[in-house]
Amino acid sequence: MEVPDQCRISTDVRVMYFDTDAGGVVHNIVYLRFIETARTYLAIQMGMSFLEIERTGIHPVVTRTEIDYKRAAKLGDELRIDGRVVEWSGIRFWVEFEVIRPSDGVLLVKCRQALALVKMPEGRPVRLPAGFPASLALDGGE
Amino acid sequence: MEVPDQCRISTDVRVMYFDTDAGGVVHNIVYLRFIETARTYLAIQMGMSFLEIERTGIHPVVTRTEIDYKRAAKLGDELRIDGRVVEWSGIRFWVEFEVIRPSDGVLLVKCRQALALVKMPEGRPVRLPAGFPASLALDGGE
Amino acid sequence: MEVPDQCRISTDVRVMYFDTDAGGVVHNIVYLRFIETARTYLAIQMGMSFLEIERTGIHPVVTRTEIDYKRAAKLGDELRIDGRVVEWSGIRFWVEFEVIRPSDGVLLVKCRQALALVKMPEGRPVRLPAGFPASLALDGGE
Amino acid sequence: MEVPDQCRISTDVRVMYFDTDAGGVVHNIVYLRFIETARTYLAIQMGMSFLEIERTGIHPVVTRTEIDYKRAAKLGDELRIDGRVVEWSGIRFWVEFEVIRPSDGVLLVKCRQALALVKMPEGRPVRLPAGFPASLALDGGE
Repeated sequence: MEVPDQCRISTDVRVMYFDTDAGGVVHNIVYLRFIETARTYLAIQMGMSFLEIERTGIHPVVTRTEIDYKRAAKLGDELRIDGRVVEWSGIRFWVEFEVIRPSDGVLLVKCRQALALVKMPEGRPVRLPAGFPASLALDGGE
Repeated sequence: MEVPDQCRISTDVRVMYFDTDAGGVVHNIVYLRFIETARTYLAIQMGMSFLEIERTGIHPVVTRTEIDYKRAAKLGDELRIDGRVVEWSGIRFWVEFEVIRPSDGVLLVKCRQALALVKMPEGRPVRLPAGFPASLALDGGE
Repeated sequence: MEVPDQCRISTDVRVMYFDTDAGGVVHNIVYLRFIETARTYLAIQMGMSFLEIERTGIHPVVTRTEIDYKRAAKLGDELRIDGRVVEWSGIRFWVEFEVIRPSDGVLLVKCRQALALVKMPEGRPVRLPAGFPASLALDGGE
Repeated sequence: MEVPDQCRISTDVRVMYFDTDAGGVVHNIVYLRFIETARTYLAIQMGMSFLEIERTGIHPVVTRTEIDYKRAAKLGDELRIDGRVVEWSGIRFWVEFEVIRPSDGVLLVKCRQALALVKMPEGRPVRLPAGFPASLALDGGE
């Protein structure tokens, strides 16, 4: 299946002191913050803005993360996070991310996350709307 | 004024990789996480448990922080955070903290925080109850 | 293979405000901080203390994380993190974690992490010592 | 004294889930991460790039933070952080920050930080160079 353009995102981040640890490199957990920022902008682009989430009460919730650490980023590095929706069915979809250092083209991190749409506060999973991921016309789960 | 025993707290923490930065020392912001943990246990001890906060809707809210960095802690250090209520009047009280490394007795950080009791979700400040800080018999701000 | 006692760990944590997000539950990334604390104490117990790491220059490095989010923890919850080494071969070993809420016995999170022993600053992977995981007599990778 | 243009900075940030807490607002400690990002870009602009810090071994180190919390930011808010050098003498300089929500012009947070230039790894404070803050021609502290 072809992935529509609005299901791809690319964000940038500069590595700050608070992203690194005493090993001199970016701490392993921090990449997931970089990835969550990319995923949030992807969600907004796909129609799940903060306002829309508040209106419908339907939240995208991470149910599984797989992340592979290949190379380490350092203080001051400029990184790019590329993400795209890769699979979907029923109540779940998968997003893949790569963290790349454009200055030398090195792939640092690969990550896959499964998400579900969950109606809050009941915590009830909601089926992906027809036309997902091209269309995300949510109706509050009714 | 004498500070009652339940208005003092002492907590311990071991410095983890994610607390340090590429400078090889604990990142300046991280000490405020250590201090917030101590302050939360102090609040519980003084009668502001999470349950009590939920029941009354009255939250202790930080309105000002002053923190002085004197010496740096390192990976693996065992630290002690000592806190105590030092001043109170009207709608505000102050808590002082020291972060100490017991192995060599060095004082690393001093911190003062002002807090207000705020009734949520209205965001309305509430007067400290009579008998504060020895007594924190909150009544939902009525 | 039987897992020796020193290859199991159990740590506790109380959920603080800074662990939660506006959804009212513990943020998905935060569980990995809880797990890293447990893994650090496990490493110390197995012979990889901070001092030993400094002496040998051999660091345990996370190369892959898989984490499944099953149920959400809330502000004030007391959680237990159980971890144990489950597989090892050549230059890699796997550790499994469960995050449990003892008050109701609910399993919140399951996690598996692959780690390698890496000689720094060269970044050269080192073979697990003979007798691993019962014995971790590191010799600086010579 | 007039503050030169390169001693002023303005950065933007969008509030993510991981910036908020169960109170539904940005956690008090998180503003200091926003401020540190602004301060890092200010340092780069003034001549203290990561490369320059590595070359000279002279790091800008926070010695005191004062922060006042006036209003709370929420999930999804777009915030602006304005910073500028306001005082300097001998071995210390002060930077002031305001965190503003441009959509309604509300001032959320005010902050002042004292910094020293410290030669690492000795930890020796270094006098501000002549011409500071307009000129930051560091020479490794010789």
